Amino acid sequence: MMDLNKIVRVHAPATVANMVCGFDVLGFAVAAPYDEMQARFISTPGVTIVNADHYNLPTNPAQNVAGAALLAMLEECEPGIGIELTIKKNIKPGSGVGSSAASAAGAVVVANILLDHRFDKVDLVRFAMNGEKLASGVKHADNIAPCIYGGVTLIRSIFPLDIIALTPPDLYVTIVHPQIEVRTSDARSILKQQIYLKDAIKQFGNVAGLVAGLLQKDYALIGRSLEDVLVEPVRSILIPGFDAIKSESLAAGALGGGISGSGPSIFMLSESESTALAVEKAMKKVCENLALSHHTYVTNINNTGIKEVDSLSF
Amino acid sequence: MMDLNKIVRVHAPATVANMVCGFDVLGFAVAAPYDEMQARFISTPGVTIVNADHYNLPTNPAQNVAGAALLAMLEECEPGIGIELTIKKNIKPGSGVGSSAASAAGAVVVANILLDHRFDKVDLVRFAMNGEKLASGVKHADNIAPCIYGGVTLIRSIFPLDIIALTPPDLYVTIVHPQIEVRTSDARSILKQQIYLKDAIKQFGNVAGLVAGLLQKDYALIGRSLEDVLVEPVRSILIPGFDAIKSESLAAGALGGGISGSGPSIFMLSESESTALAVEKAMKKVCENLALSHHTYVTNINNTGIKEVDSLSF
Repeated sequence: MMDLNKIVRVHAPATVANMVCGFDVLGFAVAAPYDEMQARFISTPGVTIVNADHYNLPTNPAQNVAGAALLAMLEECEPGIGIELTIKKNIKPGSGVGSSAASAAGAVVVANILLDHRFDKVDLVRFAMNGEKLASGVKHADNIAPCIYGGVTLIRSIFPLDIIALTPPDLYVTIVHPQIEVRTSDARSILKQQIYLKDAIKQFGNVAGLVAGLLQKDYALIGRSLEDVLVEPVRSILIPGFDAIKSESLAAGALGGGISGSGPSIFMLSESESTALAVEKAMKKVCENLALSHHTYVTNINNTGIKEVDSLSF
Repeated sequence: MMDLNKIVRVHAPATVANMVCGFDVLGFAVAAPYDEMQARFISTPGVTIVNADHYNLPTNPAQNVAGAALLAMLEECEPGIGIELTIKKNIKPGSGVGSSAASAAGAVVVANILLDHRFDKVDLVRFAMNGEKLASGVKHADNIAPCIYGGVTLIRSIFPLDIIALTPPDLYVTIVHPQIEVRTSDARSILKQQIYLKDAIKQFGNVAGLVAGLLQKDYALIGRSLEDVLVEPVRSILIPGFDAIKSESLAAGALGGGISGSGPSIFMLSESESTALAVEKAMKKVCENLALSHHTYVTNINNTGIKEVDSLSF
């Protein structure tokens, strides 16, 4: 029985896709920042979007990332259901830390709780991918999946969808968001469609090493495996200061890291919070030297994913 | 103190390299077949090879795979040491299950025991790779490493050498060796040097899935991840009956499998011995229908690697 007076609230976290060597297959969720969302039933059928932030995102659900995801979900429900979705985005769109995924995944997870958990996680990823399609033209799951599952997720296959949750050891994350725009479409078009087999083999070794390091909780192996010989050398030219930010972060003790999603944010993983804070300091120094406006976050990998909460800060 | 009267004997197992999606990076050791080797000190400095089989392999150590490996090891020892190495090969050269690796790895492991374990496993792999270089012209470690470490090994990087031992769940192995010759050099030259990024991404997902499946002991995931979109489609044309052997093995219940090394042997993994035996039956039937001479083995993944034993069957 659906409780028509129920109100459900969630936090939908930022995520890092394209985890260095795990291009298109590995991503992870962080503890902060997160979007806040609330869902309740209303008598108007379909999806009604209420914005509780200042981004002025479209309220027409078919043009809104969260709305598109939720519409895909309602298509597989009995007709007549009306859901009002209130969204307060704290993850800046275009920063490269899964802002659109948080909207899309948050929407379907909060609505699924309202609908008594009738869909499983794979269904929710499938619905949420419609939001990613609206945002970037491509159905991809490497932000959606960690947002919903938490931890590090492997998208072994996208068609058919095969998601494997990997529980990592404690890892602290430092993210710097240089205030520049990198369009996902530019980041995609710059990639070479053909690559050398010998480079792919290096990447196989690193992908395998990263998964083994995460599951065997071997920090040194994680660090050695955080190497990308295929995508980073091409895409990093779109991000001013990338090389200096990376080398100074490593010098400050980071295990490794790279471009978050398609950028412009850069993330670094560390074994301790104190190292993650030292990495933040190093990143800020590089940005200041380059007169590059930026935001930084120090957080950790979040093994829960989207989380139901009692109250929001609307 | 070295005991000059000591005699050391080992079994050096067959290995499967190029574990489907783990081309050039993942390999594993099997329980059988294995080569038998004995080492003892003699007064003649250098390496003296004694063949205890009927393969008539060269006894000049510089031209013998085991000898070349052992010579590389003795170069890092005090001068004057003389070792007699007696070799009984049970792994047929050219079968694609690491015959040369068993010779090279067995030689350095048995001698290292004689020399009071003065070298570590990474050193031993490094020495043994000289045997592979003599055998195939290329220093590769994807048979050597599992032979020495046991289980499944990841060669994350070859220069510098970075080997990670992965302990798999119980897995049974069926191998069919069609009595045809596939030259490693042909198998190498047939590969495309350039590949599509989209195919590499599929392989990233499968490599990551295979490692996760092995470490999380998830047989279904292992099975789904045993897919190779890059190398198998090209190399399998060198092996008559490959497609039928694979499809009938899967129909008989195998989790998956592919070309062992560069062939011509084909291996399949199964969750139980009874399935591995059913797979053997299916493989034999295909070979008989094609009038293809063949040998089969049913064994299991060997987590020990090269093992010291009390006596040999010389």
